[in-house]
Amino acid sequence: VGSPSASRSIVVHPIGVVHTPFTDQAVKTTLTGVEGTIEVYQEFREGVKALEGFSHIIVVAFLNQVSPTQRHVLRVRYRRLLRFGLHLADLPEVGVFSSDSPHRPNPIAISIVTLVQRVNRVLHVTGLDLFNGTPVLDLKPYTPDRAVVDVRLPAWYQALERQVAENTGIERPRL
Amino acid sequence: VGSPSASRSIVVHPIGVVHTPFTDQAVKTTLTGVEGTIEVYQEFREGVKALEGFSHIIVVAFLNQVSPTQRHVLRVRYRRLLRFGLHLADLPEVGVFSSDSPHRPNPIAISIVTLVQRVNRVLHVTGLDLFNGTPVLDLKPYTPDRAVVDVRLPAWYQALERQVAENTGIERPRL
Repeated sequence: VGSPSASRSIVVHPIGVVHTPFTDQAVKTTLTGVEGTIEVYQEFREGVKALEGFSHIIVVAFLNQVSPTQRHVLRVRYRRLLRFGLHLADLPEVGVFSSDSPHRPNPIAISIVTLVQRVNRVLHVTGLDLFNGTPVLDLKPYTPDRAVVDVRLPAWYQALERQVAENTGIERPRL
Repeated sequence: VGSPSASRSIVVHPIGVVHTPFTDQAVKTTLTGVEGTIEVYQEFREGVKALEGFSHIIVVAFLNQVSPTQRHVLRVRYRRLLRFGLHLADLPEVGVFSSDSPHRPNPIAISIVTLVQRVNRVLHVTGLDLFNGTPVLDLKPYTPDRAVVDVRLPAWYQALERQVAENTGIERPRL
């Protein structure tokens, strides 16, 4: 008798891939994302028709560098913030679903990027926080209904925001 | 020699499931979403620690009612809008990645819902647009960096927005 979740596998296939000349380390440490392209595979090329009018797109990507062990992580700290001068003691331990950590049971990323230009099935983008070679599972237009205005955040999250803002000068930092 | 995409399968597993007393038809036709819960499976329960402070969460779900044939659709019309008094002739044919259609190569939904309460591993939510029984692949907090303010939209999308707004009285309709 397995767990209810482990008993079912869901299979998906990449519809494209991320290309960027930047190293993984550069992508990891960027504050605003890097430039790159999303190549949509030939067989899915019809799927990007009319995408060029949207200023932003949502990239659903599979973080294929996350190891099987890392997929078992359930409690995390916002360790990215160590590079902004925060200390480990400042970082509360929270559930992985309360974070944007790549180390999660299904390492699926939701990245919002700026669409600069579409050249056939190649999308030129900025604001990319995905590594070169990352498989792309889906693309969606970023539409106004995605922008929630009345967001409320936990006290611990607001405290982290304040500390990062002080240390980096960025008003509304991505944590 | 297969296509580059078809040659690789990516396997994911549900971490939870959507429960709602509303019928699929009610979920389909709601304008603002329905009430329900997201049950996180026992083995992932530690992952929701500290989630309760966020007002909104992002639900990454697998639309398991989408058929294999529907996963081959690449060109779509925004047919949902027919119920708001638009006519088929009003709806341009666009690529599936320029739409939020559930019929897409990897039927992965990104739903932003309001988190009302967390009771252990059960999340009480509103604004749900997922059917009862939908497998959940991932949960992320909705953080301010997800709200893009300077969004630009294609002329055809703006025209659809205007027509739906006129017919429904909803200022910024979800298309």
